[in-house]
Amino acid sequence: MESAAERLRRQIEFIVEVDQLKEVFRQTVLTQSRRAENSAEHSWHFALMVVVLAEHSNHRPLDVLRILKMVLIHDLVEIDAGDTFAYDVKNMADQHEREARAADRIFGLLPADQAREFRALWDEFEAKQTPEAKFAAACDRFHPMLLNCRTQGHAWQKHGVTQDKVLARNAHVAEGSKELWAYAVKMIDDAVAAGHLAPGPKA
Amino acid sequence: MESAAERLRRQIEFIVEVDQLKEVFRQTVLTQSRRAENSAEHSWHFALMVVVLAEHSNHRPLDVLRILKMVLIHDLVEIDAGDTFAYDVKNMADQHEREARAADRIFGLLPADQAREFRALWDEFEAKQTPEAKFAAACDRFHPMLLNCRTQGHAWQKHGVTQDKVLARNAHVAEGSKELWAYAVKMIDDAVAAGHLAPGPKA
Repeated sequence: MESAAERLRRQIEFIVEVDQLKEVFRQTVLTQSRRAENSAEHSWHFALMVVVLAEHSNHRPLDVLRILKMVLIHDLVEIDAGDTFAYDVKNMADQHEREARAADRIFGLLPADQAREFRALWDEFEAKQTPEAKFAAACDRFHPMLLNCRTQGHAWQKHGVTQDKVLARNAHVAEGSKELWAYAVKMIDDAVAAGHLAPGPKA
Repeated sequence: MESAAERLRRQIEFIVEVDQLKEVFRQTVLTQSRRAENSAEHSWHFALMVVVLAEHSNHRPLDVLRILKMVLIHDLVEIDAGDTFAYDVKNMADQHEREARAADRIFGLLPADQAREFRALWDEFEAKQTPEAKFAAACDRFHPMLLNCRTQGHAWQKHGVTQDKVLARNAHVAEGSKELWAYAVKMIDDAVAAGHLAPGPKA
């Protein structure tokens, strides 16, 4: 049994370590300055979305506290594994393996009981099976679509992503929230109409 | 009574508006790149601290969900009012008035029931009277002290802040967590010993 002082010391070293998530950059850009968003900012925005939009979950009641814990830690693995762009099929192949190794190391900095709790939350988020994880996954995918739509399709244009790919990659939003998915489909149609997203071969 | 579609539309416009918190920069710098931290990143780091450190609150049980909601929204007023450095006595004079006007505008973007809920959470956080607000305030102050200590006293050095000022400005950490305050006092002593923080007139 570790001492109370050693327990607090480990917790603080974990908090210092995760400061590095602010240095992991994504493909989405901010609505104002158009600089790349980092994963710490994304995690905050995502968490606030969960609070504001929880009423739109397909499943209620939801354990919102458990969702927020998942959201706050969901990207910590990127400190070691980097951010994988949602349309990067090549890097997605070994993404889970790389991230699982990172989870072992980073959550392992914490006292054992908290390391187990955080790993279980991360596994739950990744598996997308519980109502909480389904709603979290819906918001996690909705967030970059929203930012892309409000920045003239910045990341989509940059990487040549087309409407069919956006619809296919994000369809599971509907499993967390039919209302958010309906909003997203309309928003994506508008982006195509505005010339911010190419329609793709099927349209 | 607004329609469901109008309600969701307002919620999404709020989410887009608060993207701007990622453009509000603080005096603290990151442990790796040493660039200035922004208030969205701070809010994420602060929220994760609350999850990891809640057991160290003086008061238990705590409503951790209510704390996380407070934390996620506590700095939104800075979108209009800017960040006020903790040792900037001049700008602190009218800080609350400027921030209260910002709260009216920004929370007012939401549907009325959520605007009321968020304003009440922000008022509770500002008043530092409930166990939840006291613990939140403790983590909010502990966070920049920790980053300063892990960056050779960067913001303290830049602004000529001394140990007596740090101790006086942050003593209310003890009202939320005696354990965190004891850790902070030791950490501040170590920063002085290392030459990263000047001792000030009384030491």
